[in-house]
Amino acid sequence: MFIGAQVSLYPMTSGFVDVITSSLGALDPYRSDLRIETDDVSTLMVGAPAPLIDGMRDLFAAAARQPEHVTMHVTLSRGCPGEPDDPSCRCDVLTEAQSLPLDERIARARQAVADAPVLGVGIDLQFSLYVLGQDRHMDEIYGCIEFLKDSGTFFRSKNFCTRLRGDAGATFEAVRQAFLRFGPAEGHVTIDLTASANSPSLS
Amino acid sequence: MFIGAQVSLYPMTSGFVDVITSSLGALDPYRSDLRIETDDVSTLMVGAPAPLIDGMRDLFAAAARQPEHVTMHVTLSRGCPGEPDDPSCRCDVLTEAQSLPLDERIARARQAVADAPVLGVGIDLQFSLYVLGQDRHMDEIYGCIEFLKDSGTFFRSKNFCTRLRGDAGATFEAVRQAFLRFGPAEGHVTIDLTASANSPSLS
Repeated sequence: MFIGAQVSLYPMTSGFVDVITSSLGALDPYRSDLRIETDDVSTLMVGAPAPLIDGMRDLFAAAARQPEHVTMHVTLSRGCPGEPDDPSCRCDVLTEAQSLPLDERIARARQAVADAPVLGVGIDLQFSLYVLGQDRHMDEIYGCIEFLKDSGTFFRSKNFCTRLRGDAGATFEAVRQAFLRFGPAEGHVTIDLTASANSPSLS
Repeated sequence: MFIGAQVSLYPMTSGFVDVITSSLGALDPYRSDLRIETDDVSTLMVGAPAPLIDGMRDLFAAAARQPEHVTMHVTLSRGCPGEPDDPSCRCDVLTEAQSLPLDERIARARQAVADAPVLGVGIDLQFSLYVLGQDRHMDEIYGCIEFLKDSGTFFRSKNFCTRLRGDAGATFEAVRQAFLRFGPAEGHVTIDLTASANSPSLS
């Protein structure tokens, strides 16, 4: 399995470089567990979902603690055909998920969100889950939406995506559960995610 | 068919509101052909691929003509199950695509990029194409990558996405061709796209 993300942080301030560089320290606890490569458009992070999503969560929370409006875009992917197997991406939740019916996966996903740490940073987040390469992909999507609606982070449905609102801990845990527990364990699953904080036009 | 996008413009400047509002005029020629709804995270644009992608292209080009670093994220979607049919989204290229073999679709896509208008704005763009709900989705992805590599806009392959570079006219035309000519005409196809201009760390 190959698991990773392309991550971009967008501080809406002329001091955007400072916000980015000062937030990057939040990644330090995860650097030994992740492969990280940066270019001018995005940063590749490869590794298991625990450090991968904790890392992007803490990066965004660090930027969101500063006063400026900031957003982050993430392209998450697991099981992309053509990517090499990477032992550092091993994830027991994925193996477990394959053996459980949809109802049980929804229940465990909700529990994981309930158990998520509270970071004390309120954020908005919207994302789309894509289950590739199987005809019944919408069953998994609808199951995921059922989980999200009762997760405590659901804000509203939008065209093409689902909008969450809440603490960074709970919202990113909801994303991780969506990513891991829906779609076949060995399948190709991706997420297109946008997080936002401190927006002057918060609705 | 229901076709649309969630679009977000991110100017990396403290004057981000001014950059956004001054760029929005670029959408005016397309407003009568698109349904447009804005919230604090993204703007929904619904309509046929001609005004839809011309509109987001011109919006981004207008922002990129200003000196500040700016990025745009787009979640493009066609044929999402559960969305109502919308006559305003009708697209003859899609109908035609269904009847043509992959080689011919690649050739027509290349020609469309060659015929694209030159806007005089150089941009970087990376995107992922997702063909949902069919087991052979990677054949369409690989066909699309073959088209892109010889399109004149290809910059390099990245994990999870393909990086383009060039004039806004050609690069957005490449995205439109990828969106329309790969994956079944009636199928569910999405794109996760990031555009960037004036980056201080251009590689």
